Amino acid sequence: MEVIKVDETSKNRKKKVGLPPGSIIYTGENPQHKVNIEFIAYNDSIIKREVFDENSNLSILTHDFKGVRWINVDGIHNTILLKKVGKLFDLDNLVMEDVANSTQRAKVEEREDYLFIVLKMLNIDPITKDISYEQISLIVGDDYLLTFQESPGDVLDSVRSRIESPNYRMRKKSVGYLTYAILDSIVDYYFMVLDEVEIEIDKLESKVINDSEREDLQSIINLKQKVSTLKRTIGPIRELITKLQTKSIAEYLNDDIKIYLSDLSDHGIIVCDTLEVLNTRVTELIQLYHSTISNEMNEIMKILAIISTVFMPLSFLTSMYGMNFDNMPELHTKYGYFILLAAMFALVLGMIAYFKKKKWL
Amino acid sequence: MEVIKVDETSKNRKKKVGLPPGSIIYTGENPQHKVNIEFIAYNDSIIKREVFDENSNLSILTHDFKGVRWINVDGIHNTILLKKVGKLFDLDNLVMEDVANSTQRAKVEEREDYLFIVLKMLNIDPITKDISYEQISLIVGDDYLLTFQESPGDVLDSVRSRIESPNYRMRKKSVGYLTYAILDSIVDYYFMVLDEVEIEIDKLESKVINDSEREDLQSIINLKQKVSTLKRTIGPIRELITKLQTKSIAEYLNDDIKIYLSDLSDHGIIVCDTLEVLNTRVTELIQLYHSTISNEMNEIMKILAIISTVFMPLSFLTSMYGMNFDNMPELHTKYGYFILLAAMFALVLGMIAYFKKKKWL
Amino acid sequence: MEVIKVDETSKNRKKKVGLPPGSIIYTGENPQHKVNIEFIAYNDSIIKREVFDENSNLSILTHDFKGVRWINVDGIHNTILLKKVGKLFDLDNLVMEDVANSTQRAKVEEREDYLFIVLKMLNIDPITKDISYEQISLIVGDDYLLTFQESPGDVLDSVRSRIESPNYRMRKKSVGYLTYAILDSIVDYYFMVLDEVEIEIDKLESKVINDSEREDLQSIINLKQKVSTLKRTIGPIRELITKLQTKSIAEYLNDDIKIYLSDLSDHGIIVCDTLEVLNTRVTELIQLYHSTISNEMNEIMKILAIISTVFMPLSFLTSMYGMNFDNMPELHTKYGYFILLAAMFALVLGMIAYFKKKKWL
Amino acid sequence: MEVIKVDETSKNRKKKVGLPPGSIIYTGENPQHKVNIEFIAYNDSIIKREVFDENSNLSILTHDFKGVRWINVDGIHNTILLKKVGKLFDLDNLVMEDVANSTQRAKVEEREDYLFIVLKMLNIDPITKDISYEQISLIVGDDYLLTFQESPGDVLDSVRSRIESPNYRMRKKSVGYLTYAILDSIVDYYFMVLDEVEIEIDKLESKVINDSEREDLQSIINLKQKVSTLKRTIGPIRELITKLQTKSIAEYLNDDIKIYLSDLSDHGIIVCDTLEVLNTRVTELIQLYHSTISNEMNEIMKILAIISTVFMPLSFLTSMYGMNFDNMPELHTKYGYFILLAAMFALVLGMIAYFKKKKWL
Amino acid sequence: MEVIKVDETSKNRKKKVGLPPGSIIYTGENPQHKVNIEFIAYNDSIIKREVFDENSNLSILTHDFKGVRWINVDGIHNTILLKKVGKLFDLDNLVMEDVANSTQRAKVEEREDYLFIVLKMLNIDPITKDISYEQISLIVGDDYLLTFQESPGDVLDSVRSRIESPNYRMRKKSVGYLTYAILDSIVDYYFMVLDEVEIEIDKLESKVINDSEREDLQSIINLKQKVSTLKRTIGPIRELITKLQTKSIAEYLNDDIKIYLSDLSDHGIIVCDTLEVLNTRVTELIQLYHSTISNEMNEIMKILAIISTVFMPLSFLTSMYGMNFDNMPELHTKYGYFILLAAMFALVLGMIAYFKKKKWL
Repeated sequence: MEVIKVDETSKNRKKKVGLPPGSIIYTGENPQHKVNIEFIAYNDSIIKREVFDENSNLSILTHDFKGVRWINVDGIHNTILLKKVGKLFDLDNLVMEDVANSTQRAKVEEREDYLFIVLKMLNIDPITKDISYEQISLIVGDDYLLTFQESPGDVLDSVRSRIESPNYRMRKKSVGYLTYAILDSIVDYYFMVLDEVEIEIDKLESKVINDSEREDLQSIINLKQKVSTLKRTIGPIRELITKLQTKSIAEYLNDDIKIYLSDLSDHGIIVCDTLEVLNTRVTELIQLYHSTISNEMNEIMKILAIISTVFMPLSFLTSMYGMNFDNMPELHTKYGYFILLAAMFALVLGMIAYFKKKKWL
Repeated sequence: MEVIKVDETSKNRKKKVGLPPGSIIYTGENPQHKVNIEFIAYNDSIIKREVFDENSNLSILTHDFKGVRWINVDGIHNTILLKKVGKLFDLDNLVMEDVANSTQRAKVEEREDYLFIVLKMLNIDPITKDISYEQISLIVGDDYLLTFQESPGDVLDSVRSRIESPNYRMRKKSVGYLTYAILDSIVDYYFMVLDEVEIEIDKLESKVINDSEREDLQSIINLKQKVSTLKRTIGPIRELITKLQTKSIAEYLNDDIKIYLSDLSDHGIIVCDTLEVLNTRVTELIQLYHSTISNEMNEIMKILAIISTVFMPLSFLTSMYGMNFDNMPELHTKYGYFILLAAMFALVLGMIAYFKKKKWL
Repeated sequence: MEVIKVDETSKNRKKKVGLPPGSIIYTGENPQHKVNIEFIAYNDSIIKREVFDENSNLSILTHDFKGVRWINVDGIHNTILLKKVGKLFDLDNLVMEDVANSTQRAKVEEREDYLFIVLKMLNIDPITKDISYEQISLIVGDDYLLTFQESPGDVLDSVRSRIESPNYRMRKKSVGYLTYAILDSIVDYYFMVLDEVEIEIDKLESKVINDSEREDLQSIINLKQKVSTLKRTIGPIRELITKLQTKSIAEYLNDDIKIYLSDLSDHGIIVCDTLEVLNTRVTELIQLYHSTISNEMNEIMKILAIISTVFMPLSFLTSMYGMNFDNMPELHTKYGYFILLAAMFALVLGMIAYFKKKKWL
Repeated sequence: MEVIKVDETSKNRKKKVGLPPGSIIYTGENPQHKVNIEFIAYNDSIIKREVFDENSNLSILTHDFKGVRWINVDGIHNTILLKKVGKLFDLDNLVMEDVANSTQRAKVEEREDYLFIVLKMLNIDPITKDISYEQISLIVGDDYLLTFQESPGDVLDSVRSRIESPNYRMRKKSVGYLTYAILDSIVDYYFMVLDEVEIEIDKLESKVINDSEREDLQSIINLKQKVSTLKRTIGPIRELITKLQTKSIAEYLNDDIKIYLSDLSDHGIIVCDTLEVLNTRVTELIQLYHSTISNEMNEIMKILAIISTVFMPLSFLTSMYGMNFDNMPELHTKYGYFILLAAMFALVLGMIAYFKKKKWL
Repeated sequence: MEVIKVDETSKNRKKKVGLPPGSIIYTGENPQHKVNIEFIAYNDSIIKREVFDENSNLSILTHDFKGVRWINVDGIHNTILLKKVGKLFDLDNLVMEDVANSTQRAKVEEREDYLFIVLKMLNIDPITKDISYEQISLIVGDDYLLTFQESPGDVLDSVRSRIESPNYRMRKKSVGYLTYAILDSIVDYYFMVLDEVEIEIDKLESKVINDSEREDLQSIINLKQKVSTLKRTIGPIRELITKLQTKSIAEYLNDDIKIYLSDLSDHGIIVCDTLEVLNTRVTELIQLYHSTISNEMNEIMKILAIISTVFMPLSFLTSMYGMNFDNMPELHTKYGYFILLAAMFALVLGMIAYFKKKKWL
């Protein structure tokens, strides 16, 4: 799972400039890992689970099976394998091109024999709190589901365990329900990521208010780009889910999926609302930073003004009695010096009172 | 009734990541109180009122009754009880999951046999002015209304007293009217909360203009988040009411409810308009704060400039006549010192006139 | 005619929290004036005009008359009277509740036998320039028009004089035309109010640019709230007029009213456009204020910098020759003092040239 | 052609408050010029051109003519003439009221026998670059076009010359095409005006960046109001053209006009886009001004800081050796003075190096 | 390929003010290059490629050919040639006018016999990173495609090589597919340009944060205008593609083009999203610049305050003991001077501790 930088998406696109449509070209980074193909077939009574590698004979994937077949391909950089799988399931080249191109915008496409869904799967490193983006493509057939991920490791373990446990209704349900379960898992992880970002904003906000430093500006900009990337990446999820709810697609996914999709749609709306709130807050952070900077400057100015107001008149007085005029009667009085000291002391007291009144001290 | 912090909503969601849909899991804080079930059955002539605890036999709730039955459950953390009630009224598991999950967005759902409404009930502590949020779910059946609240205490006492008093038309009306009355009470309390927030904004605004302090920045941010939470929580009410007015739902709620819903809708629009205004005002508060800070800095600078402009030239003069040149004729004149004093006095007068003209004094 | 403060609207609402719908409660301030009922009946040939007080027998109002009857009630705080009038014309209690509640949002409602219109009538004090808001409700029946105002005095005198003069086509027209004429008068006064506000903005803007003071910030905030209240109060007029143009209502108002409504609609659009422009301008005033404050600070800083730059080096020089070293040859030259004076003079001239170049002087 | 100030539109409206609809009242300034009526009749083979004054017999205008008649009235302050023309062509009083009222918003109205179009014609003084606004109304009949302008002089000379030249297809075309040609000329002049405004913005922007002065703030505000007036005045053109393209109107204008309207529509969109861009740029000018002011302040502060940092320590040293303690050994060394001078020189060099490093010098 | 400045578009328009529609006038700059006409005809088995100059006999272009004919005209300033080509293919004069006018907004127009598409082709200089804009017009007939470009050199070489290579499916496809391939190439280059702009923003942003200079303000404004021009120029592409997907056009382009258009549409959406993000970032750059300026000022102020706070009290002390009072006992003590030095040293240490605590040092 790679960590995508903000402008990754567009840069990778360059590899494809000038190529004909339908060219299956991998546009992500260059991962070294081997591609695994996980095959799970299940129905009410049986569950089969097998793992193939890149060179296995894959014809078993399309064997007849009374139930649901889920084929999960962990790696899209092996384009030869992609082509093989594409042919096996009779998939359009344009679809396979989109699968291999890791810069897709989340979308749903209805094809004659299958549904093509592509979206981003997010994950967050529990320690560094780095967010990683990974593209996942779903090909939803009548009795099979194909998922393509960029790299090993995903957020779907809860789905797997629900398939394996005979208690859950999962096993009795169709491919449509499996699709819903996977989308639901992915969207649930969106919330976790948004949570972490909100915590980061909270921290930075309270830091800026209480003790802002020059470095915070950089942190704010970084956070702003993080939220902006999130918006670009997971913002289209709402649109995607709404399209899933259109009549023709909902019918295709059948078995009472409608009610679950409406639940998923609620989540999609909350994701987008939260994103909007986070974006506003992070935008206001710069303004806030600016205000605290002004505040700090105000305090510096106050100190400067106090020091000047106190010492300039005093220095003037002392400087005056340092003059060398022949005829300066005060200089020759017995207590002149001590009277001046007392006068200066009184002056300072008066100024302190004035500053207290002005709330500068 | 707990006081929800801004990011509560999303954090509680974590408890549910990876669970199958329809799992009835309580996602709020952990309240200790016992769950009470309040049962009110009434028609034109009779009114029955009973209170059950968590362990009572609840079968009476579904007994035939010619009129309206209102069952109010005060607590959603006892998921076993929730399941029991759900079975009794033959409710969908997905609905009961939403009831138990206190992070729902306000919404209406049409089911075959009932209507499911969920929204936030607001209350405000009369002394501390803290706003508390509580989720309330309404299951509107043909002749019964089920309400689920998070904790004891609510804003529905006026509805109860109108049921008890034989003078009000309440007793002659259907479940639809009871639903309307409850929603109306909740929305009326929204106005009270918005009122208090507006008063807070007024206070802070006049404080910032007249005597802004460093601490005000924190208060503004807190207020901003309060309004933001209100927007997220009660903003969807407009949508909810609009959906209640759609034909199929309005028909379901029958007996001339339409006219009341349009009244409720007016209130919903005013709530949203007011929220928008409050949000704009609180956003402008930071800008205002910034302006007053600049104002204050201006005044500090003026003082600094006045002090410097007055004393620097004076000190220069005194310092000049403190020099030790052998040949400085002025030093040896009889009135040199007094002439200098007079000149400096004139200089100060001139400067004061200049500052007066510049409106600095 | 009372002057409503910004948050009046929501505060008055409190009086109604918890009351059943259809309770006719007056929610405005407590006016002392007596309620007058003005009755004008006219057709092509006759015109009758009578004024009743609160205790008169009002049955004459519903007597058959071949033409248009206009009943204008000046005061909505006498709820007993309101109920009486409501019964006389067979009006719904919910409608009468809205009439008595002076916090309504402008709206149109179609009832079976009549049309219910409520909006705000604005007036501006010619001397103090204070804007007063008054709610006016119109009940448009087949052959009668009921208008309810909060207090005596209105902007409808031109309508009255057009009814009285036999030259105007008014007398030949139906109730729909009378309704249009009243709405048109009210909207025309909106323009006068917006005019005055625009003049205020012009004044404040030029004051801020040329000679901004600390107090202007308060004026800007006040102006901002004035415009904000106007937006909330008369903004919905556009929506109201658009709804009047819907087919069913336009037909109800018949006799070629359509063409007049489109004229009214043009005005409504201009009102809203102007409000938008005023709002933008007043928002930019704060920014402008901020800029002029910065400008002023810049000038203060320049003076401070000039003074310091001139006198610090000079004072350094004089202070240097005030030192008491035994061996300072310059001190014992004959013209040392005068050479130093000349050098300092040259230094000052050089600095002035530098400041001129920098455009600081 | 008068130069309308920003708030002219609404102020003139006052004249009409309280008048019945259909009162033909001139609401512009009071021009002195005589009203000319220009009459051009043409078809494929003939062209007739006559000019009448206010008192001519106008019956010839409605004489039968096989072709297109264009009647252009240069002046709308002579309301008696307007009424005469209105009667001659059987025009509605409400339409004639709009013609005379120079504060109309651009719009199209379909009447039974004719089409009523009103919009603003812009012109720009080639020397002063002042923009002048003039209202032009078009009454499009079956075989005639009536245009009403506020004052002599217009932007339609190119249309006239195309009518006069037999080469252009103009002569063969219908009234619809003439209408299009006039609208196209007016919109083309919009571009010229927007051009000039863009040049003004360019100039001011580069002035603000390179050498901003206090006066620029006023210029920015003026420019902002200019753009704002343009937006209010020519912004509705897009809407107007879109409405012209609706089926019923396009059919009325017949002879392949559709294709020309779509061309006009392209121009309308570009006008609105450009307006939006100009508005954004002028709004950002204040922000830019603010930034350059801050920049300038920064430089002033740097100079102040440099001067203080250099001379305060030096003055302290000299002041120290000006003290009159009996026992100050340094004072009595032979080279004390010169050593101090050297030390101070080294200090200054060090400071200059520090400032160079900080990029302050 | 010329580099268009921001306001080029509107300025060139002037040349056309007052001309009748359908006048074929070249509105771009005045290029010197000769016009080349490239003719490519191909089908499954054959490919013919010829290049003509301005004076060639062009009748061959319309000869019957079983396959696709692509005629590419490199230069639109030769209006005589344009007219000749227009007549050859029986094109409308209004269309040819649009082809010659290089200030068109991107659009699609359906004509009876052909489709007219006009958009901007972008290119970026690999060294100077200057973006060049060139208008390209496509006339899509049944079996031919006409493209008009402003100047030699384009981004379509990949399309040409795919036509030439027999491996690609291009050769088997219709004119619709060729149109798609060209549009796809153009949009792919949009991404490259946006990439470069994003890199520029990245650079400037990090420069502003780390080491902002006065000159950066100018760079930000330039970048802002670059993005603004991009938005104006390539923003309408989304609309264009959406219109291509309407039923009638999609049918005209036939052979499964629909699926490719939906792919193109995805790209169009990403282009517009990216433009929006870039625009927001560049707008925030000014704010960021402002913040760093404030930051820098803060640091200057700190230094000033430190210097003043340290040296003003010290200078006061030294100045005090420089006074010439007869009776100043301290002056005559043996260690007075050294005690003062020690006291001043202690004072400085105390101040340094204070500044450390305040984080100023």
